[in-house]
Amino acid sequence: MNAADGQKIAMRGAGYYSANTAGAKNVIDKVGDLVVKAVAKMPRLADGLPFAIADFGAADGGTSMDMMRRLVGAIREAEPERAISITYTDLPHNDFSTLFRLSQGLLGTSTEVPLAETPGLYIFGSGTSFYRQILPDNSLSFGFSATAMHWISKRPCMIADHVQAVGATNVEREQFRAQALRDWETVLLARARELRSGGRLALANFCVDEAGRYLGHTTGIDMFDTFARLWRDLLRAGRISETEYVNATFQQFYKTPEEFGAPFRDPASSVSQAGLRMETMFTIVTPCPYAEAFRSHHDAEAFAKAYVPTLRSWSETVFANALDSSRSAHDRSAIVDELYGAYEAEVARAPEGHRMDYVHCVTEIVKL
Amino acid sequence: MNAADGQKIAMRGAGYYSANTAGAKNVIDKVGDLVVKAVAKMPRLADGLPFAIADFGAADGGTSMDMMRRLVGAIREAEPERAISITYTDLPHNDFSTLFRLSQGLLGTSTEVPLAETPGLYIFGSGTSFYRQILPDNSLSFGFSATAMHWISKRPCMIADHVQAVGATNVEREQFRAQALRDWETVLLARARELRSGGRLALANFCVDEAGRYLGHTTGIDMFDTFARLWRDLLRAGRISETEYVNATFQQFYKTPEEFGAPFRDPASSVSQAGLRMETMFTIVTPCPYAEAFRSHHDAEAFAKAYVPTLRSWSETVFANALDSSRSAHDRSAIVDELYGAYEAEVARAPEGHRMDYVHCVTEIVKL
Repeated sequence: MNAADGQKIAMRGAGYYSANTAGAKNVIDKVGDLVVKAVAKMPRLADGLPFAIADFGAADGGTSMDMMRRLVGAIREAEPERAISITYTDLPHNDFSTLFRLSQGLLGTSTEVPLAETPGLYIFGSGTSFYRQILPDNSLSFGFSATAMHWISKRPCMIADHVQAVGATNVEREQFRAQALRDWETVLLARARELRSGGRLALANFCVDEAGRYLGHTTGIDMFDTFARLWRDLLRAGRISETEYVNATFQQFYKTPEEFGAPFRDPASSVSQAGLRMETMFTIVTPCPYAEAFRSHHDAEAFAKAYVPTLRSWSETVFANALDSSRSAHDRSAIVDELYGAYEAEVARAPEGHRMDYVHCVTEIVKL
Repeated sequence: MNAADGQKIAMRGAGYYSANTAGAKNVIDKVGDLVVKAVAKMPRLADGLPFAIADFGAADGGTSMDMMRRLVGAIREAEPERAISITYTDLPHNDFSTLFRLSQGLLGTSTEVPLAETPGLYIFGSGTSFYRQILPDNSLSFGFSATAMHWISKRPCMIADHVQAVGATNVEREQFRAQALRDWETVLLARARELRSGGRLALANFCVDEAGRYLGHTTGIDMFDTFARLWRDLLRAGRISETEYVNATFQQFYKTPEEFGAPFRDPASSVSQAGLRMETMFTIVTPCPYAEAFRSHHDAEAFAKAYVPTLRSWSETVFANALDSSRSAHDRSAIVDELYGAYEAEVARAPEGHRMDYVHCVTEIVKL
């Protein structure tokens, strides 16, 4: 995951992120079919040029590792000798060491040959926001990004009585929307410069789908409403201040398919003028693997213990950073533990309806 | 700094390394003149290709940052529009986040425009040992490495009664030498594959020079002998075991200019056959900046407090990792603190003669 300046966005390090985001991996695996077909449609590169892949907002690279194997396999099937590069990008403070160790088989228990051992494959990291150009002009063959671009480049305002734009007032939400639409144009124009002619992007972004569903809001209990309510409980209990309550504002926005497509429908837009065309767009709901597992094992406590860490992996820094900087590290982590402890207790007590289904909008974009 | 498998080699993170290695930076600044002249000798790249730079064994990138500015300036003077990439390489567990933050101006107090803000400059990291190929074939324009390649790819044996090959028995030292010569060939052949025709390497490696001098062994007190003696004191005091004493063996070897040049003098060698030619070789002694400062300020305690951290920055993991893994983290760090505390006390008590002069062999290599 990734964003730009402003709120310090970070996933927990040392493999915690990819180990606790089974749902994110499921989505990427689904997108794999599209990726393999996309490679077959690409024009042959000139001799001596590497097939350059980038994963934008890759975190520790764990969730996309299997997809990368398939992608590399598809390229090599067409051209056995073609050099390949993969550039994993994320914010500068991302845990790149875990990424390099994972790709070299120095972490985990996989018995597969490490990705980095593939002959003629070269792996790089770039600690650069995807709101900037990361790769040289006309050098990128295939760009990929999953579950990252809902992190917007800055928060236009704090959300006073909720934590995410989905629960904001109309006035607040429109400010987030405006920022998100500007950011989408920025991301696409940066990628348009990086892509070679005939190069492609496959993006799986969180969205609000045609039925109004979004992450943790499909059937059952709304996840962000739950976060907001439990955070409010800490305010009411005097555990956090009013400012700390307000400051827990996710630097995120979920666009609709309509919004993802808008720059492409207007032939005069800067995105269309830069040569980008949208070839494919569809939405998918990926059932929460923890809620699904609960349906077979019926162990509410085990469900809570497995489910809440996946929420925590991408959300805890938002709450931790909302706390006053004068608090000790110990105090901050105690408050954050209380929040997730309360969430876990609630799920263990009344598990029905808790589920973090993923709702993605998948787009395939080509540069003319 | 960098090496391959075997001993876990690590510099302390979060800018500690470059903040405490003023001498390393001085050497790189000296090599800057050579680098700028080398760029002028290079053939013009085809349109659309980036001028690709790599810094092999870059640690946090801090010591080479000013040199990189000069190099980028020299390239842009010749070709204002040329895209440039810099790939910083080191072992996978290197602190790449600090590297990205330094280059983006997110750490430190420099008032200069951050390197990463240079238009058309793209910065990457690769957590890959320089004993492997890191970049695609024929893609590298300019490779740089400073104070890194004395870390060999593995320890052929432990050094029973010293810490570094310079103090080893003849039998031990010859094993280290053989490993180092194989490693030198491996490094050069990997670089030969990466370099474009006309591409160049500028390497500043620790050496034993024509006068028998090496790091911390020029005039005055021998640094590695001091380490060995203080470590032996911990053995005699019963603080560490015999095995722990022996295991403190630096995975390093300092080659002579003769040894650096050998593969180039033999036209039938694999290195010559791969198209590499050595154009320049010279040795330089860089006076220890802390010992020099002491000559003006005469404050022995201040000298000790400034000097010992620079030794510690590159050496402490060797002692920490020599300790039995059954010891607690607290116990290990207490022992390591004792070692450096003893060193600091000794320098504060009798400062004369303590100095870590750098002794480098600088080579400029071109690929035909």
